[in-house]
Amino acid sequence: MLIYIYLIAITAEAMSGALAAGRRNMDLFGVALIAFLTALGGGTVRDVLLGNFPVTWTQHPPYIYLTVSAGLLTMLLARFMKHLHQLFLILDGMGLIAFTIIGCNVALRLDYETPVVVMAGITTGIFGGILRDIMCNRTPQVLRHELYASISLLVALLYLFLMNQGVDQDINMLASFSVGLLIRMTAIRYQLSLPVFSYAPNKWTD
Amino acid sequence: MLIYIYLIAITAEAMSGALAAGRRNMDLFGVALIAFLTALGGGTVRDVLLGNFPVTWTQHPPYIYLTVSAGLLTMLLARFMKHLHQLFLILDGMGLIAFTIIGCNVALRLDYETPVVVMAGITTGIFGGILRDIMCNRTPQVLRHELYASISLLVALLYLFLMNQGVDQDINMLASFSVGLLIRMTAIRYQLSLPVFSYAPNKWTD
Amino acid sequence: MLIYIYLIAITAEAMSGALAAGRRNMDLFGVALIAFLTALGGGTVRDVLLGNFPVTWTQHPPYIYLTVSAGLLTMLLARFMKHLHQLFLILDGMGLIAFTIIGCNVALRLDYETPVVVMAGITTGIFGGILRDIMCNRTPQVLRHELYASISLLVALLYLFLMNQGVDQDINMLASFSVGLLIRMTAIRYQLSLPVFSYAPNKWTD
Repeated sequence: MLIYIYLIAITAEAMSGALAAGRRNMDLFGVALIAFLTALGGGTVRDVLLGNFPVTWTQHPPYIYLTVSAGLLTMLLARFMKHLHQLFLILDGMGLIAFTIIGCNVALRLDYETPVVVMAGITTGIFGGILRDIMCNRTPQVLRHELYASISLLVALLYLFLMNQGVDQDINMLASFSVGLLIRMTAIRYQLSLPVFSYAPNKWTD
Repeated sequence: MLIYIYLIAITAEAMSGALAAGRRNMDLFGVALIAFLTALGGGTVRDVLLGNFPVTWTQHPPYIYLTVSAGLLTMLLARFMKHLHQLFLILDGMGLIAFTIIGCNVALRLDYETPVVVMAGITTGIFGGILRDIMCNRTPQVLRHELYASISLLVALLYLFLMNQGVDQDINMLASFSVGLLIRMTAIRYQLSLPVFSYAPNKWTD
Repeated sequence: MLIYIYLIAITAEAMSGALAAGRRNMDLFGVALIAFLTALGGGTVRDVLLGNFPVTWTQHPPYIYLTVSAGLLTMLLARFMKHLHQLFLILDGMGLIAFTIIGCNVALRLDYETPVVVMAGITTGIFGGILRDIMCNRTPQVLRHELYASISLLVALLYLFLMNQGVDQDINMLASFSVGLLIRMTAIRYQLSLPVFSYAPNKWTD
């Protein structure tokens, strides 16, 4: 089941990448590339960090076609995106959580220690969005918005805790996924956010 | 012959990196580093993505000296660059295409599937310029300008198509190179470009 | 002894990352992530470039805790940072130099050629700060400020020269470290800097 959620997730992420590219007036090629990077960049960074070669998407060419197509299609659908905003946020939240669980599984399979497994989950969850924002020359949104990246951390911790308690793998995934999505939806609904650190010295050169 | 074009190409790319660094008032060290990254960054990203270790330039120290020198020399030549604009664009176009073909060859040697070979070619062709722009805090130009990155895609596809048709390797390289350069020159001459996607919602938080 | 300096160094770098995140009004999670990236990003980029897997910090989870804690603690200490500016600059300089020597050692252990060893030292020394600035959407400060990145180059060259002369490893480290720190302190005191390259053509499209 995770694979279906994964496919929906990379599609949603590709669309978010395409919209960000559109805000920077990129051409067809730029839109396709940013869509691809947003959808598969998080997993790529994770694979490189963990030394997990070959990188996952290089073994699954259909992922390339899917994300590039989703990106290009978004150009046609852009005018309707406003009305699909709620749906889009849900799909994006599902992606964040599915990516996180998948990332943890990859690191677990390679026998990394728990803190690294958590980092692998978070990296998979949020780095696609970070790469998107770097490519579009803006400060990463995922580190500033309402509860988003921290939900990735929470899901990773919950997933590993339940695994440690001997909970069945399928039930664990379902539980972690549901709890994560519920918190994400609550955060959007009530605009919950972490405390923000604002630092504005008058004279500081670094 | 590709090796000579390659050397010219990394020199041209290093110069383009140095000029971009100059626009950001970087010091000698910054100029040298951006020159190096622009020239050899695309191949580095490709090698890391494909798990092709050791990374190519680490086995060819002269490439380091060449790109750093070209970058520093550009500081002296900057005042003449305006007059060399046309020549520079041609060298840059040659670089884009040579990089693309070389990138495809690396992925082919490692037995990756066709779509990944194309991605490797494009990555080698355009990622140096993308890294340059990220380091200089601007939106990647290669994704916004007239036909540029898409020529990398086109050359990769043509090269693989001719290879698939059993065309001799040398003739194939020459043909792909010539066609690519011709299209690039035409694109510059007539300012051809891909359709641009402009997305500017009044209220959209992602 | 280098390990103690290293721990002080990653703490200082994490704090510098947290302050940069605070200037962009990031939330708790963003502060922690940027702190981690600033402190351990340079070594990570080095390990990936050299194909040195597993990446160092994945084998030392305490480094994750230390840098994240230092980042979060900085939020509380921020109001006092102004008074600690001098101390902070010294710690940061120590970090730059310790990172450089460690980076050289890693590349030497993997039998890379001298120019690559130098690049590995520089990468370890300055790439954490570069990643910090990219994540915070600003032009890398290390390439613009007074003598900073170039001290990394100087220390790497001195360290390799003394090694080549058969100087005892411990004495070499101490000497390279001391000379580097002295120059860095002098550069700060007298605001020494490399020549800057300013390029501002009226009409240039690349």
